[in-house]
Amino acid sequence: MTTQPIALTQTVQKGGCAAKIAAAELRKILTQVKFPKSHPNLLVDGGLFDDAAIYKVTDEIALVQTLDFFTPILNSPYHFGAVAAANALSDVYAMGGRPKTAMGILAFPIATLPENVIVEMLQAASDKIAEANANFVGGHSIDDDTLKFGLSVTGFVHPDRIWTNAGAKIGDHLILTKPLGTGTMTAALKRNELNENDIEEAIHSMAKLNNIIDLLDENDLQNIHAATDITGFGLSGHSMQLARASNLSLHINVKELPVFEKTFSCLENKFLTKAHRSNSEYTEKTCEFSKLSALEQLLIHDPQTSGGLFLSISANSSQKILEKIKKQFPKAAIIGTVLAKQNSQVLYE
Amino acid sequence: MTTQPIALTQTVQKGGCAAKIAAAELRKILTQVKFPKSHPNLLVDGGLFDDAAIYKVTDEIALVQTLDFFTPILNSPYHFGAVAAANALSDVYAMGGRPKTAMGILAFPIATLPENVIVEMLQAASDKIAEANANFVGGHSIDDDTLKFGLSVTGFVHPDRIWTNAGAKIGDHLILTKPLGTGTMTAALKRNELNENDIEEAIHSMAKLNNIIDLLDENDLQNIHAATDITGFGLSGHSMQLARASNLSLHINVKELPVFEKTFSCLENKFLTKAHRSNSEYTEKTCEFSKLSALEQLLIHDPQTSGGLFLSISANSSQKILEKIKKQFPKAAIIGTVLAKQNSQVLYE
Repeated sequence: MTTQPIALTQTVQKGGCAAKIAAAELRKILTQVKFPKSHPNLLVDGGLFDDAAIYKVTDEIALVQTLDFFTPILNSPYHFGAVAAANALSDVYAMGGRPKTAMGILAFPIATLPENVIVEMLQAASDKIAEANANFVGGHSIDDDTLKFGLSVTGFVHPDRIWTNAGAKIGDHLILTKPLGTGTMTAALKRNELNENDIEEAIHSMAKLNNIIDLLDENDLQNIHAATDITGFGLSGHSMQLARASNLSLHINVKELPVFEKTFSCLENKFLTKAHRSNSEYTEKTCEFSKLSALEQLLIHDPQTSGGLFLSISANSSQKILEKIKKQFPKAAIIGTVLAKQNSQVLYE
Repeated sequence: MTTQPIALTQTVQKGGCAAKIAAAELRKILTQVKFPKSHPNLLVDGGLFDDAAIYKVTDEIALVQTLDFFTPILNSPYHFGAVAAANALSDVYAMGGRPKTAMGILAFPIATLPENVIVEMLQAASDKIAEANANFVGGHSIDDDTLKFGLSVTGFVHPDRIWTNAGAKIGDHLILTKPLGTGTMTAALKRNELNENDIEEAIHSMAKLNNIIDLLDENDLQNIHAATDITGFGLSGHSMQLARASNLSLHINVKELPVFEKTFSCLENKFLTKAHRSNSEYTEKTCEFSKLSALEQLLIHDPQTSGGLFLSISANSSQKILEKIKKQFPKAAIIGTVLAKQNSQVLYE
């Protein structure tokens, strides 16, 4: 058994959230399944194969259930494990919840990868779960051709304080907590055009917990009307979903979007994934991004792994909340506003 | 897009629970990870990557979290989806809980398999989850080389009425609710030596919910001292785990083991999996099965997919409980007894 470092991204075809099945394709397939009517206790229904849902247990307690895993987008097992864990825990934070228990999902090529890869990935996940004050309670492993890792996380939220993507209000300000660009930067890594040191800023960001709930007080939390996390469908896909669920339109100022130092150079070099195209196709009919440059368009479609939270916040408290968030997420920014419903669901300028 | 039937088992190398990473190997790897101390609310810790755990939420409510998925062991998508769902739901039933919410775990080769495979698998899972009075609340999909499907299930159990594999008592009778042999029979299917009609009895058994909790009354449930479900580690592996956790020994009468009509003929024909060997290696040091024939040894090591429950029950109520269980599980049987701790953890005769 070798203990040589292995570049994990070189062991798989498709990396990270870019390996998701395209949203439009999945939606079409799911319309053919006859699901029974939702139970009234199901406060947030992930029926269309969304990876988070909320079930009311008592008047005080609602259960958040989530699930996320993917193939390596980084080369070092510890970094990949930390990012996979932060990404999965984010699904609970994005709904206003606090993670409580987590189980590992591990598909591992036991014949071709050394055992220390498992040890380092699980150590990173364990450390990250502990940082979230949650418990690593078990897992399921499978001998598989390509490595996949992630978590199923459950958490709790008060039934009256759930964040969904359906609550945005006209006049709200839109905050994005992390920079965009992890899709193109990890694509560069996979092609060996950059190494992990070059994209340290993005790795640090992806491994960061989306626990802004720990930075805010009760009054701040009341002023957050809607939230989602930005992952595989990019800013374009997830913002469209929020606009649709809230039955409103969004205006996003592309000049305000936070990016990593190397985001634009990677996009210029055409380090792209399949999701850059599929996210564009997913949103082109209902969103207006024709005023953007080609590069800016690639940016909004860039699939994020463990991306930031996208929050719709009362205009009169957005600046105060932004200041608090910036202590942990220095590139967080107000990137747009919520409008009454227009022809386009999201307008980019 | 073709709608031709595709034999799913022919699309993968390793099938079902046989594709698990061997228990002994996993245990060795996990000793190298530094996990933090368990939280006191964690009533059942699946820390060593077990696929079920229990966390106490209030004095009345404990959360059961489970996770299970695998590659196709059957050819028809509907059958595979139903078995994968029943298998995942079983992890909650095995702890005395009732499933409440379920999320799909789907790895799918979107370029090579037709969409109707997804539709039929999800329909079967949805039907099975509804049969369990639970809710299909979402899922996570990934574009992958080989098909994998399963569920992450959460359920609830009263904190005082949890079944674990640690509660067996000297003198208890051991009940197994489903026949053994799904490992060898699905191996035959994969080799095209048998078709799905030939193994209908096993498919029916694997798709059956392990919901014996719905067949028993409160008094019966009090008399069940320990429980586990028999899956990839076979009767030999799971019974050893129960004996070890209970700090007792088990005596199992191999002549009483329920089997399918074709179980022994498949074993005779050497339709075997990697797990037949790894389960033997996992148990040979601590269990005594040398009195069994070679064929009987293969039987106890046969890896089950969606196998039955293995219950340790007060001797004076075992017959009454068996009669109730037999109404839904006609081959259920009393297969042994619990002994004071011996040199061997499980004695087979």
